Amino acid sequence: MVFQGQHILSIDQLDKEAVERIIQVADEMTPYATRVKCCNILDGAILANLFFEPSTRTRISFGTAFNLLGGHVRETVGMTTSSLSKGESLYDTARVTANYADVVAMRHPEIGSVAEFARGSNVPVINGGDGPNEHPTQALLDLYTIYNELEALGKDKGTIKIAMIGDLKNGRTVHSLTRLLSLFPNIQFTFISPQALAMPDKVLTACDNAGLNYSISEDFHYGLKGQDVIYLTRVQEERFTTQEEANLYRGKYCLNQSLYKQHCDKNTIIMHPLPRDSRPEANELSDDMNDNPNLAIFRQTHYGVKVRMALFALVLGVEDKLTQFEKPMNWYSPRHS
Amino acid sequence: MVFQGQHILSIDQLDKEAVERIIQVADEMTPYATRVKCCNILDGAILANLFFEPSTRTRISFGTAFNLLGGHVRETVGMTTSSLSKGESLYDTARVTANYADVVAMRHPEIGSVAEFARGSNVPVINGGDGPNEHPTQALLDLYTIYNELEALGKDKGTIKIAMIGDLKNGRTVHSLTRLLSLFPNIQFTFISPQALAMPDKVLTACDNAGLNYSISEDFHYGLKGQDVIYLTRVQEERFTTQEEANLYRGKYCLNQSLYKQHCDKNTIIMHPLPRDSRPEANELSDDMNDNPNLAIFRQTHYGVKVRMALFALVLGVEDKLTQFEKPMNWYSPRHS
Amino acid sequence: MVFQGQHILSIDQLDKEAVERIIQVADEMTPYATRVKCCNILDGAILANLFFEPSTRTRISFGTAFNLLGGHVRETVGMTTSSLSKGESLYDTARVTANYADVVAMRHPEIGSVAEFARGSNVPVINGGDGPNEHPTQALLDLYTIYNELEALGKDKGTIKIAMIGDLKNGRTVHSLTRLLSLFPNIQFTFISPQALAMPDKVLTACDNAGLNYSISEDFHYGLKGQDVIYLTRVQEERFTTQEEANLYRGKYCLNQSLYKQHCDKNTIIMHPLPRDSRPEANELSDDMNDNPNLAIFRQTHYGVKVRMALFALVLGVEDKLTQFEKPMNWYSPRHS
Repeated sequence: MVFQGQHILSIDQLDKEAVERIIQVADEMTPYATRVKCCNILDGAILANLFFEPSTRTRISFGTAFNLLGGHVRETVGMTTSSLSKGESLYDTARVTANYADVVAMRHPEIGSVAEFARGSNVPVINGGDGPNEHPTQALLDLYTIYNELEALGKDKGTIKIAMIGDLKNGRTVHSLTRLLSLFPNIQFTFISPQALAMPDKVLTACDNAGLNYSISEDFHYGLKGQDVIYLTRVQEERFTTQEEANLYRGKYCLNQSLYKQHCDKNTIIMHPLPRDSRPEANELSDDMNDNPNLAIFRQTHYGVKVRMALFALVLGVEDKLTQFEKPMNWYSPRHS
Repeated sequence: MVFQGQHILSIDQLDKEAVERIIQVADEMTPYATRVKCCNILDGAILANLFFEPSTRTRISFGTAFNLLGGHVRETVGMTTSSLSKGESLYDTARVTANYADVVAMRHPEIGSVAEFARGSNVPVINGGDGPNEHPTQALLDLYTIYNELEALGKDKGTIKIAMIGDLKNGRTVHSLTRLLSLFPNIQFTFISPQALAMPDKVLTACDNAGLNYSISEDFHYGLKGQDVIYLTRVQEERFTTQEEANLYRGKYCLNQSLYKQHCDKNTIIMHPLPRDSRPEANELSDDMNDNPNLAIFRQTHYGVKVRMALFALVLGVEDKLTQFEKPMNWYSPRHS
Repeated sequence: MVFQGQHILSIDQLDKEAVERIIQVADEMTPYATRVKCCNILDGAILANLFFEPSTRTRISFGTAFNLLGGHVRETVGMTTSSLSKGESLYDTARVTANYADVVAMRHPEIGSVAEFARGSNVPVINGGDGPNEHPTQALLDLYTIYNELEALGKDKGTIKIAMIGDLKNGRTVHSLTRLLSLFPNIQFTFISPQALAMPDKVLTACDNAGLNYSISEDFHYGLKGQDVIYLTRVQEERFTTQEEANLYRGKYCLNQSLYKQHCDKNTIIMHPLPRDSRPEANELSDDMNDNPNLAIFRQTHYGVKVRMALFALVLGVEDKLTQFEKPMNWYSPRHS
């Protein structure tokens, strides 16, 4: 796949080779993301960071990634103040934005909205989430996290056992990650959820088609055992009809340090797309695990910056020129000391 | 007119020579706006982009223009979270902001507010719209669009026939553009609107004083015929007392490709200040015209960036030094390929 | 005190030597803050400017300070759209943000919130105000203003007479400034307020412990006499139970040019943390003083930029390298002409 000038809308457009290229370029971002050196390759370039559905974390991650390559960021947050509220089509918004920016990152609450926008844009558009549909950069950063964490542990990446636990019905990240992982052989999934929040048939069918093994259960403790990776998700309460209905499931599966020690294999990696709900009635991942070295949830956000830097570099065609635009970093940073 | 250090508050402060100078400098922005080269002349400068009335398009256009010259942008959106809501005067806000920024772009819902702010600012202030009153950069970009589009068609710019069609009462852009065009001889206007939304007497008087010819009609098809430029406007429904009243006029004049072919001269340029209302009940400019090469509405937004770059360069006194701060552009862009 | 890598959470962590170092570095920012030269020492660095409680002035001041040193700014405003509203802990938000930014400036409505955030951040965090608790950069800029204003007048800085007038109960700035000034000998305070809005005992006790003299009165005119500095505050109406209760005090003390001439010593400096309430019923500091050369309220905001630049330079360990990264400034600025 040639990335230059392309939109990144769905993980379905990526084959194994493309994913491996993204990982490779993300690796090359290490010195800049860890603040050993600066890279000013995109000095003068402009990212339009359009978050019609607010998301502080993802928005700042995209903006940070672009700044770390030297570019400027123009932003919008929310929909009520945008021209869309005056009846403007996404096509028009895209045609206009493409006259301002060199690349667009966009989140929008409606399924298909980012793809519709992309049809009007002659600059590359990266999908930052279109409602419950796609969130390809999250899936890529999750894959990149698994890849890095297993490598750091010296584990064989050929066979990976992953449990996904929680609200598997409403969490788009687990759908996308499952589909992305199915590009790679020898994955064994365990899907743990209340029956009402089970992994959708569409995703299971994709696993079947890829010839992947999976088991399904409601048994939390069973899911914890014998895994390389445990991927927990928050109950997406905003997707339920009533708070009462959501409360039926919040707090049903709570991983804490004691359960980890009792059930998990040594060096089982714990992932979570964040935010985790730390309120006592939810708390799917206890704060008492914060010092567990296998808790990868914050490293995930670091890998996210690198993956987004890689995507910007690839769609703007600068991935082979990075080192020409390096310069020393002059300030104190805890990460390279 | 000497631009350096001046506020740009109203088109009334611009004479013909000043307008021609702005156009000239906007032309010099072409390599940077089209991403052939970068210009870092304003590296280290700060724009305060104060949008007390939200407007994604205009706000991002100003910010983009400043970034394309190498500067940083600090922004605020909306009024409720600002000190103005705690009783601060615009004068105080201006005195403070002038200590932060090198130049200010400002939109505010109240007539005269930007001029009042400017009295407290010792850095240049550019009016980005003060309620229904003035929006000088829109008028300038509209003029610049007409100039460029006619030139591209090889048309004689000496005599220009322009129809303005739609809500001519509430659309400040048509008021400002009419006044700006009256600096130039041999303009012939046709004003088409429902009688209740007619061009205000004040604007007509200005045309009279400038010795300009105009005709007035409610007949849409008549307005389409024999024009060089057709400037359509959205029914400004937010300015009506009730939605019902606005609905009387929405959708009354709808230009589509079929009507264009039937009534318009070949190469009649279609303009619109955007956003256009694409909802079926409004739809003053049909999406089926998107492939018509004379549809200039998206090029207008590109010209807008260049005009705003020109104004920043002029008020900051760097318009003659641009080429000294050029550097090559290193990334892929569809616009210069 | 070694600043590099440290959080700046409270003035209580600063001793006299630390404060003097901040003032010294702020002085070194003069050529950049007054736009004589640019400094790009932080080119490539990222500030996370997290304003969970909105504040246009302080937010833009932090962002400007970072831009003036060459850095990028990523921002968030308000809380409802943040992950905090989905139950995320401040600790998690901090762990994530530290993966994006090199330094954080943060405002939050809850007491202690910024310190709690800082516990999760391995990059330096600067408190931009945690509810009614602390606002250390405001106290520092106020001190820096007093220092500069007295010096400009050729006054002996050894003995300073300061009247604080207005809502001394709810104004966190007067609390912090009083505690900060108590590091310096020979300060003589006069606290003027309605009895119900008197300076809290905690602050008075701190003065007692530092061996500082103060007098307390409700008499506005008495407070104006014989001072080096008069520090006025707005009645913080948002902290009262009802608007009616706030209105009992709004407008009680109004300094105008006539009272200044009648009661104040020549060259008495007038300060105010801003915003001042210019509505007729409040108006603690009349607009008719705007031309009084001893009105320091706008210079305060300029000094604020320099103090924040100094803090960024210190916590990022670049305070000794500034001149190596200077470059000429190429655009017109009224401040260095």
